[in-house]
Amino acid sequence: MIATVNRRLTHTLQERVAGLRCRNCGARFPKVYLRRCPECGGLLVVQYDWELLRSAARDALGGPGIWRYWPLLPVTDPAHFVSLDEGRTPLLHAPRLGAALGLHDLWIKYEGTNPTGTFKDRSSATAVSSALEFGFWATALVTTGNGGSAVASYSARAGLKSFIFAPTHSAQPKLHHMAACATELVLVEGDYDAISRTYKQLIDQVEGVFDCGGLASPYKLEGKKSLAYEVAESFGWQTPDVVICPVGTGDQFVAAWLGFEDLVRLGWIERRPRMVCVQSTVADSIVAAWREGHELRPRPAGRTVAEGVAIGDPGAKGEWILDILREGDGLGVTPEDDEILAAQRLLAKTEGLWAGPTGAIAVAGAARLARDGTLAHDARVVCIVSETGLKGEYPPLKRAATPPDLGVWQEIITRRRGAS
Amino acid sequence: MIATVNRRLTHTLQERVAGLRCRNCGARFPKVYLRRCPECGGLLVVQYDWELLRSAARDALGGPGIWRYWPLLPVTDPAHFVSLDEGRTPLLHAPRLGAALGLHDLWIKYEGTNPTGTFKDRSSATAVSSALEFGFWATALVTTGNGGSAVASYSARAGLKSFIFAPTHSAQPKLHHMAACATELVLVEGDYDAISRTYKQLIDQVEGVFDCGGLASPYKLEGKKSLAYEVAESFGWQTPDVVICPVGTGDQFVAAWLGFEDLVRLGWIERRPRMVCVQSTVADSIVAAWREGHELRPRPAGRTVAEGVAIGDPGAKGEWILDILREGDGLGVTPEDDEILAAQRLLAKTEGLWAGPTGAIAVAGAARLARDGTLAHDARVVCIVSETGLKGEYPPLKRAATPPDLGVWQEIITRRRGAS
Repeated sequence: MIATVNRRLTHTLQERVAGLRCRNCGARFPKVYLRRCPECGGLLVVQYDWELLRSAARDALGGPGIWRYWPLLPVTDPAHFVSLDEGRTPLLHAPRLGAALGLHDLWIKYEGTNPTGTFKDRSSATAVSSALEFGFWATALVTTGNGGSAVASYSARAGLKSFIFAPTHSAQPKLHHMAACATELVLVEGDYDAISRTYKQLIDQVEGVFDCGGLASPYKLEGKKSLAYEVAESFGWQTPDVVICPVGTGDQFVAAWLGFEDLVRLGWIERRPRMVCVQSTVADSIVAAWREGHELRPRPAGRTVAEGVAIGDPGAKGEWILDILREGDGLGVTPEDDEILAAQRLLAKTEGLWAGPTGAIAVAGAARLARDGTLAHDARVVCIVSETGLKGEYPPLKRAATPPDLGVWQEIITRRRGAS
Repeated sequence: MIATVNRRLTHTLQERVAGLRCRNCGARFPKVYLRRCPECGGLLVVQYDWELLRSAARDALGGPGIWRYWPLLPVTDPAHFVSLDEGRTPLLHAPRLGAALGLHDLWIKYEGTNPTGTFKDRSSATAVSSALEFGFWATALVTTGNGGSAVASYSARAGLKSFIFAPTHSAQPKLHHMAACATELVLVEGDYDAISRTYKQLIDQVEGVFDCGGLASPYKLEGKKSLAYEVAESFGWQTPDVVICPVGTGDQFVAAWLGFEDLVRLGWIERRPRMVCVQSTVADSIVAAWREGHELRPRPAGRTVAEGVAIGDPGAKGEWILDILREGDGLGVTPEDDEILAAQRLLAKTEGLWAGPTGAIAVAGAARLARDGTLAHDARVVCIVSETGLKGEYPPLKRAATPPDLGVWQEIITRRRGAS
């Protein structure tokens, strides 16, 4: 059936969003459009009325895509729920990959089946819906691709205009995707920092354009909580032991933590999982601080095949993740590029899942933690594979071609029949 | 919840697959591995025990991916249901696109969210599961990409080896996808016909290698029936008025027809929809025969942006489609390349869905039929959009870059604010 929202319960629950609270200074605000705390610049978090939610949220589950969990998302009017039927992504038991890694209860949450191919669909759905709810006429974002194609797609779906600012060096498949869906894809010459500075000035000055930047919007972050809800519900409202998550800007890590926390508050699950923060060796500020027990020290990111995690300064969200790791018995791990590429190949060969390097980094993290004995062999482990492999830019495949020759082909098959 | 199969009902229904029947000569065979009719070379169709299915199939619905509909699929042992949680793809009401085309009840069945990005996941799931059930150790296929990545992925998932033969000119994103998932991706120099001839000799001679070629396997075709089941179930077991389907080899068209026929036989829906066959002007043998009232006359396909439908000789399956069009009050339509590209852009800009040209051809067909008055404005129309736009090979995007200049960016936004 086409999923629909229970209208009676949207009325009952319409006061559920209590407002915003600053994670830094604790200041509270009503539900209005704010990007950061007006008092201290801290990150804002959406607040809910938990008593109200406990009374009616369970019966209210149902709606298209991530809006199945609408009571726990910050958009009030169902007419503003923008959806391409995102989420509902496969949570696959991975016995062959697990055997290769020595993890016997390993699961992959494969985000590549989202409508735009990555987990950015989840946050773009709530960001664009919020833009609609607050009466904006357009959305905007600086991006190298995945966020931009998602925001442009959901904006088109909502009938809003979208302005996507992308560096010229972004991958071609992503540029074409954005050009197709955005009102205006603005290609920009210059480094990312310069682009971000000009963007910040722009968004402060133009009227009616909703900032879909991940670092700023509390409404964007909320959508990614749906991943935690799906994992818990798929397991019959049970918590897996460990959830392994790639960390770039850190949105998904924080949102998953908040999502599991919501479910504990509601009494739908008993505990939160142990969370693993996976960064690259070349952009490891959070994991380094966690390992060495000091505060977050940003440093310039180096180059890695896992482009999505090449963030040297995760800012306030990095500090938040550090708190989560310390408070929740979390773990940090930093695979090298060769481990990431090996994990990408292994995931494809053992389970048939094609992920980009950023998507495969969680599997590389699992491999490392299993190898060094940090993860128990029978722990229920979920790796968040954040993107399809189809969004990368690939050089011509280096491989010798054969003629259509029966003898050669028979030999290939005979050789492989024996091999393991 | 992780979808599971009802074990009691798999026992009740285990004799439901009655065997194979030749569509040409009517010869019947038990459920064995046959590619074509051994008596006349005709196409084989899987037969079911309808009395048994009517008694228990409805209660039995449930299972991962397309295996939700396992009673209507030809694999007996649930241990052989190979799945990446394929199918369950969005069926989206498309009000903005519909307004642009003058169709007020237009729906998009977006197949790009399948695990490998196209509707080939559906048929690969039943083909590979059948390979497992018949005791094969490997699968094989000649492909330019979408079929190959799907077969390789499901083979990996099943623990079977896969041999994928692809022309060197195949698109790079598809080659990388196949190289990652296949046991052996064999790049072949030579034209597709020569490759197919050598492949046919190979598959006749090697033992234990399951032919996943779409033209030959009745077990492969069956998986694509699931698309019809999903559409009907999403509408609450109601039939849409019109289903518009791209036709290359014709698998999905035929399978959708069979799927709706199954549901009529079970009494779950009352009638089959009117089916529209969309071909390109450069590969239009079926539509030409339908229009002009003569038999199928294959002719070499020309070049089109919709590579997936560039089939000049659809063979026996083409004749089958012609029969369906004539018997079921069907329609044929052949958009030009510029109409296909316009439909691709329109789908992205109005609904935020990024499809390849082959995926967008159904929308181009809908546009043509709405424009010429063939489709009523209030007909419930479903366009099958068969693939994501992420599998194409894109040249560098031609577009001037700006510096990060506040004035220039403000002007872009001001200009667009006024425009419709």
